[in-house]
Amino acid sequence: MVLLPLLLALHATEKIPRVVDSTGKNAFDDLDKLSMAHLKERGHRLFASAATCYWVSIVTYYLLWKAYKHVSDLRAEALMSAGIRAEQFAVLVRDIPSSSEGYSTKQQVDSFFRQIYPETYYKSIVVTENKAVCKIYEELEDCKKKVARAEIIYGNSKEVNPEGVRPTHRTGLLGLIGKKVDSIEYYNKKITELTPKLEAAQKVTLKDKQQRSALVFFTNRVTAAAAAQSAHARMIDTWTVIDAPEPRQLLWTNLHKTFYEREVRQYVVYFIVFMTICFYMIPIGLISAFTTLPNLRKLLPFLKPILDITSVRTVLGAYLPQIALIVFLALLPKFLLFLSKAEGIPSQSHAERAASGKYFYFIVLNVFIGVTIGGTLFDSFKDIQKNPDSITQKLAASLPGNATFFLTFVALKFFVGYGLELSRIVPLIIFHLKRKFLCKTEGDVKEAWLPSDLGYATRIPNDMLILTITLCYSVIAPLILPFGAVYFGLGWLVFRNQVLKVYVPKYESYGKMWPHMHVRILAALLLFQATMLGYFGVKQFLYTPIIFPLPIMTIIFSFVCSKKFYRFFQSTALEVASQELKETPNMEIVYNSFIPPCMNADKVPEEQLNV
Amino acid sequence: MVLLPLLLALHATEKIPRVVDSTGKNAFDDLDKLSMAHLKERGHRLFASAATCYWVSIVTYYLLWKAYKHVSDLRAEALMSAGIRAEQFAVLVRDIPSSSEGYSTKQQVDSFFRQIYPETYYKSIVVTENKAVCKIYEELEDCKKKVARAEIIYGNSKEVNPEGVRPTHRTGLLGLIGKKVDSIEYYNKKITELTPKLEAAQKVTLKDKQQRSALVFFTNRVTAAAAAQSAHARMIDTWTVIDAPEPRQLLWTNLHKTFYEREVRQYVVYFIVFMTICFYMIPIGLISAFTTLPNLRKLLPFLKPILDITSVRTVLGAYLPQIALIVFLALLPKFLLFLSKAEGIPSQSHAERAASGKYFYFIVLNVFIGVTIGGTLFDSFKDIQKNPDSITQKLAASLPGNATFFLTFVALKFFVGYGLELSRIVPLIIFHLKRKFLCKTEGDVKEAWLPSDLGYATRIPNDMLILTITLCYSVIAPLILPFGAVYFGLGWLVFRNQVLKVYVPKYESYGKMWPHMHVRILAALLLFQATMLGYFGVKQFLYTPIIFPLPIMTIIFSFVCSKKFYRFFQSTALEVASQELKETPNMEIVYNSFIPPCMNADKVPEEQLNV
Repeated sequence: MVLLPLLLALHATEKIPRVVDSTGKNAFDDLDKLSMAHLKERGHRLFASAATCYWVSIVTYYLLWKAYKHVSDLRAEALMSAGIRAEQFAVLVRDIPSSSEGYSTKQQVDSFFRQIYPETYYKSIVVTENKAVCKIYEELEDCKKKVARAEIIYGNSKEVNPEGVRPTHRTGLLGLIGKKVDSIEYYNKKITELTPKLEAAQKVTLKDKQQRSALVFFTNRVTAAAAAQSAHARMIDTWTVIDAPEPRQLLWTNLHKTFYEREVRQYVVYFIVFMTICFYMIPIGLISAFTTLPNLRKLLPFLKPILDITSVRTVLGAYLPQIALIVFLALLPKFLLFLSKAEGIPSQSHAERAASGKYFYFIVLNVFIGVTIGGTLFDSFKDIQKNPDSITQKLAASLPGNATFFLTFVALKFFVGYGLELSRIVPLIIFHLKRKFLCKTEGDVKEAWLPSDLGYATRIPNDMLILTITLCYSVIAPLILPFGAVYFGLGWLVFRNQVLKVYVPKYESYGKMWPHMHVRILAALLLFQATMLGYFGVKQFLYTPIIFPLPIMTIIFSFVCSKKFYRFFQSTALEVASQELKETPNMEIVYNSFIPPCMNADKVPEEQLNV
Repeated sequence: MVLLPLLLALHATEKIPRVVDSTGKNAFDDLDKLSMAHLKERGHRLFASAATCYWVSIVTYYLLWKAYKHVSDLRAEALMSAGIRAEQFAVLVRDIPSSSEGYSTKQQVDSFFRQIYPETYYKSIVVTENKAVCKIYEELEDCKKKVARAEIIYGNSKEVNPEGVRPTHRTGLLGLIGKKVDSIEYYNKKITELTPKLEAAQKVTLKDKQQRSALVFFTNRVTAAAAAQSAHARMIDTWTVIDAPEPRQLLWTNLHKTFYEREVRQYVVYFIVFMTICFYMIPIGLISAFTTLPNLRKLLPFLKPILDITSVRTVLGAYLPQIALIVFLALLPKFLLFLSKAEGIPSQSHAERAASGKYFYFIVLNVFIGVTIGGTLFDSFKDIQKNPDSITQKLAASLPGNATFFLTFVALKFFVGYGLELSRIVPLIIFHLKRKFLCKTEGDVKEAWLPSDLGYATRIPNDMLILTITLCYSVIAPLILPFGAVYFGLGWLVFRNQVLKVYVPKYESYGKMWPHMHVRILAALLLFQATMLGYFGVKQFLYTPIIFPLPIMTIIFSFVCSKKFYRFFQSTALEVASQELKETPNMEIVYNSFIPPCMNADKVPEEQLNV
């Protein structure tokens, strides 16, 4: 991840010699002999290349088909598990129409679902506006933590001095100003103040801050699965029912968004993403135009002494123009995740999937196509607009020249990337820094040690980029294949270990990521086939039309796969949901697991559920 | 309907003077003054026309929105009715996978659905290959009818002669050759022979000819409605579940078609329809090239004396070239219905909807655009291919000239068409002919009197054509508006009467036809807006771009409508299905109503169900 913007920046600046060129002209020439670049125009040997295109495509279809089937099996197995998972008994109901008779949302939901499911309806949780309650709850939790910390400090001080030193702090800004107080007493007093306040706020929220959506619970899995797939009301914009996400990944603030708000937000976000992908260079160009060395000197005069050092000036002079780009590329995934959440998506996993999709298009269009053609998409826009067919030819003509760059790119990825991944040096340093300066209690240390989530939103688009590169060069410069094989082979070993033993998943989406990846792999394959069409055209190969069936085959394959497999990834098949459970579910535990922590202090720990 | 091919033929032959021209030049000139044709190029008065385009579009949106809501209400009302309708308790299951353990389809269906719906599953009917049984059944029914008829003839003869004459017939071909036998005795003997044969065949069919689809019954409406909307198996190509159509409109021979067969058939049919719409003139041209007078004389020498009469020769000389076209246009709806059924659609109503959609595109593309531009689509293909934008301009340039033709077309439609419709002269003549020569028993007379179905498949596309014409000329030649108003106003009066008092509906689709019509009305509106864009272009109106938002508005409106309303037309909302019933359904009657007559001699008459 960290490497990408650097590499891109290196490649984009013409002033800096290319990484590859430093290995000497020889390496480049050798590669040229191994690639298609040395094949003669109109040569008969091009037939072999055409045959390889078919081979690559057919192997891709076969593997994708098998993989889809495999993931589908895994999903079914997970969904069929006899253990009780709360989200399988619940559905999320949105767009509840406002009642003309003045009933509350709670009453409406209960009467509506009790009529349709008289025997299997259990209870409902109406989504409430929790902002105020959450604020009090967080304050309370903070106080509790601080009391615990103060008590430990007090205990530790007793070891030195039998009487101990009662910890104190100031009540003002950041503990720097204000009255000095005894921490344990102060926070305990605050807790006794806040507890009744929280209870009162909870009552008010439950009664007056009901929003027009709810979580509805059923006493069996089949009803919940069927309900999530059925239209409940005549109009699609009322009583929208979908599968409930896991409690831990619910995005509570998105749940109340209405149907039309969601639709409009979606299109607005798509538009923003489209603009970002096509024209991201404009704001970055503007910013880098202003952040030149002379400007910095003028605006931030206190930096003068540093900027006057020759070596610093040289490095900054070379990299400053790229800094805005590097910062932008580093922040982009977060920005895309923010945009995806702004669409009104109800669950974390769905938002990350959406962000990952957006990032993929950015990365393929700008990094792969951008680097190959040279310059950004925006620059090539005018040419492409004049003659839309020219893009594949342009791409094809520039591909061989960039083979070495991408070879190095893939190699760097697995040499440096996997090394960093396995050693986890960065998290280790952060942990030790935290333990030294921040952690006071056992809990704090544990929290600092806790490894993060895998981070699908950025990892998958990056892997997809490598796949796109490998596919596109597979015939033109087959030397990329061992690199690709090592990248994914090592990746399998490394991430198998990391996923099983290091990372703690933040959520479980039951394999819903796969269809997204499948479609994007096919998009990469289509790009490969289009490029090959262009490449054979450039080589003036007379039988170029024998490549034509390939893109059509890809489109048909994609259509058949989505027809056959995708429905089951959208919703749970009843056959799967109807598998018998190990025990009768304790509906009260299921119900409680969905109550947000700020609304229920005595929340049942989730571990009890997944047993 | 009958008029259309004639008019088209009249218009297409340049030899025959146009219908309109016979009314004199004056009428044409008058119309020209009332139409936009007299507006000056680049004139400021064109603003008024542009404003009218907006007015027409917005009124259309408003009426369509209200109509969709209204139809949706009607559908809900019909579906919510407290009476018991068999199809609301059943679903149609197709693509049942073949069992690896050698279970029969019946056993598979029962165990599969009993597991998912342990409480609400009732029974299933497995679809069987009924061809052999049906043949025996029809023979039996025929014998029963003939016995009844022979007994009536015998009874009638007794009135003349107290002993009576026992009716006899010959057993050979068409009753002309073979041994002479006593009809009553002969048919009674045949009935006693066929009855056990039918029973045996029924048993064999039930046991050995089970196919891979079934009708499944539930004890309540909500479960059936939810089941039809849920994925039951992990793969879409197994255990496909949809709403069961009414028993009387099930297309039994289509039920066993597998998922992939249906998909492939659909695309093949679409391709054939596309070819038919674009290139129908080629085979017709070939046929009419061969059916010239000299050719007829050569091939059918026995026609010579007739062809030698001068008047016959003149008429035939003028019309022969068009005969193939007229025959083709008359047979087209039947051909399209046949194609739609060949797609593997399970119900008659759905097949008629599909045929109606195909006919609409044929009629609008070939009659409206074809007549306007002159010649068939095929002729204009090359021009359009060279410059795809030219079609709207070409259409716009030719529209004013054809205003009078279409005015006459609409007027003829309601003068002659509604007259024929109201008087029902053709069915009356046919009835009297039948009664005189064919009907022997009371039942025969009743059958001959029975009015047919409304025939949606041809009626609706024709009305849509009138609507397309009216919309497209609404601004260019507003004189069409009163004609259109009279057509639809009179049509409302006439068909209200016909539908309520004359026609007997063959099926009930609960308003599923409306979304199809809605989309096609919007397609007509889009055509109107595109034409107007072209027309303003031809008039060199500087502010033509103010029309641009209109097509975009239409597309958004269509999208919003289909999002909001269409889901409920696809499947039954659970809110609607959960309405209480007047009485507990007698599931045995529901079940029996779906057994095809040849499989169950003691079928419960449907009237008992709909009480």
